[in-house]
Amino acid sequence: MSDKVLLDYGSGGRASQRLVSELFLAAFDNEELSRLNDAAVLDLSGPVAVSTDSFTVDPIFFPGGDIGSLAVHGTVNDVAMLGATPRYLTCGFIIEEGLPMEDLRRIVASMAKAAREAGVLVVTGDTKVVPKGACDRIFINTTGIGEIIVQPTPSAERAAPGDAVLVSGNMGDHGLAILSKRQGLSFEAPVESDSAALNHLIVSLVQSLPQVHVLRDPTRGGLATTLNEIAASSGTGILVRESVLPITDAVRSGCSFLGLDPLYLANEGKFICILPQELAEKALRIMRADPLGRDACQIGVVTEENPKKVILETPIGGKRLLGMLEGEQLPRIC
Amino acid sequence: MSDKVLLDYGSGGRASQRLVSELFLAAFDNEELSRLNDAAVLDLSGPVAVSTDSFTVDPIFFPGGDIGSLAVHGTVNDVAMLGATPRYLTCGFIIEEGLPMEDLRRIVASMAKAAREAGVLVVTGDTKVVPKGACDRIFINTTGIGEIIVQPTPSAERAAPGDAVLVSGNMGDHGLAILSKRQGLSFEAPVESDSAALNHLIVSLVQSLPQVHVLRDPTRGGLATTLNEIAASSGTGILVRESVLPITDAVRSGCSFLGLDPLYLANEGKFICILPQELAEKALRIMRADPLGRDACQIGVVTEENPKKVILETPIGGKRLLGMLEGEQLPRIC
Repeated sequence: MSDKVLLDYGSGGRASQRLVSELFLAAFDNEELSRLNDAAVLDLSGPVAVSTDSFTVDPIFFPGGDIGSLAVHGTVNDVAMLGATPRYLTCGFIIEEGLPMEDLRRIVASMAKAAREAGVLVVTGDTKVVPKGACDRIFINTTGIGEIIVQPTPSAERAAPGDAVLVSGNMGDHGLAILSKRQGLSFEAPVESDSAALNHLIVSLVQSLPQVHVLRDPTRGGLATTLNEIAASSGTGILVRESVLPITDAVRSGCSFLGLDPLYLANEGKFICILPQELAEKALRIMRADPLGRDACQIGVVTEENPKKVILETPIGGKRLLGMLEGEQLPRIC
Repeated sequence: MSDKVLLDYGSGGRASQRLVSELFLAAFDNEELSRLNDAAVLDLSGPVAVSTDSFTVDPIFFPGGDIGSLAVHGTVNDVAMLGATPRYLTCGFIIEEGLPMEDLRRIVASMAKAAREAGVLVVTGDTKVVPKGACDRIFINTTGIGEIIVQPTPSAERAAPGDAVLVSGNMGDHGLAILSKRQGLSFEAPVESDSAALNHLIVSLVQSLPQVHVLRDPTRGGLATTLNEIAASSGTGILVRESVLPITDAVRSGCSFLGLDPLYLANEGKFICILPQELAEKALRIMRADPLGRDACQIGVVTEENPKKVILETPIGGKRLLGMLEGEQLPRIC
């Protein structure tokens, strides 16, 4: 193959086939994909969870990951948030003519590793190559399919007054990692993306605690926006205690330097868990037993007052409204 | 909403929500989508067919369709080719900042209409807006999920010597329609894309004739490339009679003017059906009873000789090898 991605590789013809067999089949090695039909046959039973996401992150390689691993983690996590075991991924590449083949190889290898670790198979895919200038290097769409293992499924509208609001770890790492790489900034303490597949942790959690009300990953728009969505869906209020929010010093100081609020920065390996207060301790124990949840903590409670609003209680006891992200803080974060 | 797509609409925040509720929810109106969870819960049983495709077609509006209807038809057809009833679609938009909102509305309306006609629900989606120049107007990924209604499923490797090779209609319309629009050419007889959802026709066909061996839609790379894939998968030869190939005079003359071969041009509303010769007449009757298959005909046979090759028999009885598309004849055709 050429050392650059050529338009020919997206033709559907012989050159496409070479790309598919030498790169994708080799990396995502599994029987269903190797049939090379236009669609895959999956053996799934019971209710099924499906999620789709397109990844346009810039830069495509960043501290803690790349567009390939992110495309697996992001979709695996969205499926898991429904209390489901992700099992299959589809993968659609849109590649700019001229992308170094080495970059594509690295991205695909990273996807394959992430998929293996998450325990999902890439069963069907599609590659389009567009002329130079028609897209910026590479975009990846992944659609994830999983088997729902708990019903009723965790869902934003199930947040109920009295529930505890937990997060699985530190907030803002992904957003700050992307932004500092993009701006060419380096901080004293380097910040890495938290991009990770949460499904194994989520499965242990919901298997032990099927009573979980809400699971959501605070990606675009960050914790503040996701909590607002939950408050809006459930008609409850959410009170968050600023003093206990887990944010590393590195992220705090990086955000302060850049004038950003870590509560609005994307996370790609964290989740919010809302469940009855009496189950919070047990949930935290399960979360902390997994390296991906070692900094888990309770950050607040669901309230009857202030319906559809998120209130931040400051360390000195003041309260302020934590609004939803209005516009775009950071395009191409994922 | 603004009359242009702004970066804000892809933020995950309030502006995104407005776009989703005012445009997407209104157009794709269904209960599962309206839950706005990151993933959808689907009630599916038995073996499931899944296919994904990214659409980057240029121009985005063309005679006979647009990128929206094409994104529905293309994926619905890929699922149907597995002998499955497509039921759900996911939809991922990547939109360039500044796209006229009117264009997006028109595309979404066209997707919604195509999905309604095909009988599929758009159950979950994702929207990314990238800065000006990072993509060319709009790309759409759709992933389709369907229930398999016949087993073993039709599959390229099942083509067997003695089988009849049928096509559901005229070849080359989509490719020529796109190219002439892109080049600003107008022919005496205008050529429209054949973009259409074939699932209803496919379902009638496989319900009456579950013995069908192969169903494939000859999209990128055209009839010649798809037949080559079938020959390669099954290890058989395929003999095609040039004199009976259904190609309209308009496509013939347009191709001749542009130096293109219609057998390598994409189709988006046609399929190849390979099945035992004795069932060919019945299959053609079923196909012709549907407006999408009214020009269906037998174009050749599967042979033991010339394994993995496609041979074209010319009108005067000569034979020539019909190779697979080598490079890219026409980028961004779908």
